Amino acid sequence: MSNELKRGLEGVLVAESDLSYIDGSVGKLVYRGYAIEDLAREASYEEVLYLLWHGELPTREELTEFEARLAEERHVDDDVLETIAVLAEADEEPMAALRTAVSMLSAYEPEPDADPEDLDATLRQGRRITAKIPTILAAFDRVRQGEEPIEPDESLSYAGNFLYMLTGVEPDAVAEETFDMALTLHADHGLNASTFTAMVIGSTMADIYSAVTGGIGALSGSLHGGANEDVMRTLREVDASSKDPLQWAKDAREEGRRIPGFGHRVYEVKDPRAVILEEKLRDLSASNGDDTWLEYTTTIESYLEDEGLTEKGIAPNVDFYSGSVYDHLGIPMDMFTPIFAMARAGGWIAHVLEYQEDNRLIRPRARYTGPQDAEFVPIDER
Amino acid sequence: MSNELKRGLEGVLVAESDLSYIDGSVGKLVYRGYAIEDLAREASYEEVLYLLWHGELPTREELTEFEARLAEERHVDDDVLETIAVLAEADEEPMAALRTAVSMLSAYEPEPDADPEDLDATLRQGRRITAKIPTILAAFDRVRQGEEPIEPDESLSYAGNFLYMLTGVEPDAVAEETFDMALTLHADHGLNASTFTAMVIGSTMADIYSAVTGGIGALSGSLHGGANEDVMRTLREVDASSKDPLQWAKDAREEGRRIPGFGHRVYEVKDPRAVILEEKLRDLSASNGDDTWLEYTTTIESYLEDEGLTEKGIAPNVDFYSGSVYDHLGIPMDMFTPIFAMARAGGWIAHVLEYQEDNRLIRPRARYTGPQDAEFVPIDER
Repeated sequence: MSNELKRGLEGVLVAESDLSYIDGSVGKLVYRGYAIEDLAREASYEEVLYLLWHGELPTREELTEFEARLAEERHVDDDVLETIAVLAEADEEPMAALRTAVSMLSAYEPEPDADPEDLDATLRQGRRITAKIPTILAAFDRVRQGEEPIEPDESLSYAGNFLYMLTGVEPDAVAEETFDMALTLHADHGLNASTFTAMVIGSTMADIYSAVTGGIGALSGSLHGGANEDVMRTLREVDASSKDPLQWAKDAREEGRRIPGFGHRVYEVKDPRAVILEEKLRDLSASNGDDTWLEYTTTIESYLEDEGLTEKGIAPNVDFYSGSVYDHLGIPMDMFTPIFAMARAGGWIAHVLEYQEDNRLIRPRARYTGPQDAEFVPIDER
Repeated sequence: MSNELKRGLEGVLVAESDLSYIDGSVGKLVYRGYAIEDLAREASYEEVLYLLWHGELPTREELTEFEARLAEERHVDDDVLETIAVLAEADEEPMAALRTAVSMLSAYEPEPDADPEDLDATLRQGRRITAKIPTILAAFDRVRQGEEPIEPDESLSYAGNFLYMLTGVEPDAVAEETFDMALTLHADHGLNASTFTAMVIGSTMADIYSAVTGGIGALSGSLHGGANEDVMRTLREVDASSKDPLQWAKDAREEGRRIPGFGHRVYEVKDPRAVILEEKLRDLSASNGDDTWLEYTTTIESYLEDEGLTEKGIAPNVDFYSGSVYDHLGIPMDMFTPIFAMARAGGWIAHVLEYQEDNRLIRPRARYTGPQDAEFVPIDER
């Protein structure tokens, strides 16, 4: 046992994984060896889920079968929808509502007595959770706006069905494709805090409902999932300031403000996911005839690049572009992190399954810094 | 970054902590320097919570104030009780029901907008959760038995009120004292998997509801919280076998069966908590006039000791005695792990508060073992 303190476990290797690899020095991200660019542009989110969960990309036949399994599991039990409505009524935060609803799903699991060591059963349960998260989120958002939830449409893709249940309108091709791409980009990213949370929970052989519920909790923290909301808030602030975005960025720099969406613990250069989302932001700006967010983001990025920050690793990360993309898709700002959870649940489940295949309870130590032999004094003598 | 794989993070120091210290080689456990024996025998669970959360044992005045704060927060919102009833109706597992109900509590938090960095607010929120867990568990157990939940009684102690709400009868002094002691013994234990889960979640600056919900999930796993149920099941098996317990133990050894409740990753000798619970089991056996479990447990323990297993670190742990103690208190077997959660929530909250004081996002790495440059093949060419 080394006596060195590993704060934040930075650089500590806790497991072997075939799932995703990040080379932060060159901005490379792969899932099972496939470049994120290829997967985002050429594969659907369903294909990516299949890749993460089953180890390889599906054939057409395998995909059709897999899509059908996922689609038929979208329906959420009325009891859960009722609780979602109660939470919306109580003004609950979307991430907290999602945490409660996913936890509650286990009561309606059709294989409640599956052996935790039966990883095929765990995969089926994980697939059910993944299928139902969009239904939960869309229902919550509709109910809090005084609208009826919309039943899932099995004929639509995972991405398309969510946008349909959220807005009541079938999305056009650009919107559906963009959202599908955003899901792929967020599906996995090494042992980030929420994925690691799911693994620690899974390492006790707790069920996958517990692992995903824990992942949602971790992702709700401001140091993890909330950054794209911060970016959006900043872009709105630029807009409200009536300043030229370049001037706004200069002033922010001068005031020593940290601009959200820049820098990442594992990337030294521009996040490859940001590169792809920037392209999609261009597409959406063109198709929506509104390039406000595009102008602001690219102006801020160019300015920080000119200032030499990018070279220091203060480069745009995925959050810098995802917020404005979601805004173009008509998604409310406080749903950005829940959407991140929707996508990342795929990664959580993949990591739990992989870890449980050769499981070892995760139990680190703390260096004890308290007193050794405190003398107990009865309360009335204190 | 070391290239060494730290499986299960065994021996890895992830934080400094003043909360608890275990010397597994001599069977020593302290909370903030106080021997577990003194705390279990001389202090109430409320005093122990105060010690863990506030850093020192309370004076009489501080304790009175603290007890009042805890007691007045016991009431659970009707919406949550309604969901608990729905979960009981759906035959949900007690740990899963607890996970959902605790997650749901956040919707009724009187300080929902507290800054996550305001640790005083986090402590108040944690106190509310701790106060309400017994109410949730007792209500769940009553409803599934077709009984009405019982309102908490503010005049009773934390331990006494739980037994009262569970059984409908005010416990006698031996029962209340024993249960209080069991809570103290389970309140903290270094960075076990559920505590570590709570810390990882807290390290994202997620709220304490997320951290405790995650801890419950981790504790529900069979490698963590479920062992005292396994012990109880084993004792019942001994009983049903009509064998002499010594013969049963010999046969089990010969068949190469692992007897639950023996061995622990951090203790090489008898767990100090087991020593104390064994005493209480003697008291309860005497006061209930039934020493069946006592006879079985001590016979099995003596046999394994005679076989030299204790010297090899296969010594009784806390779970070996807690199950039969709970059984004497009239607690149903599937509530043993939820009760562990009730006690350990105090430790989870203490660790999250301590960690967030000097917070660092917990984000380890995985060693990537997948392919590097897989060539993407479009689906119809696969």
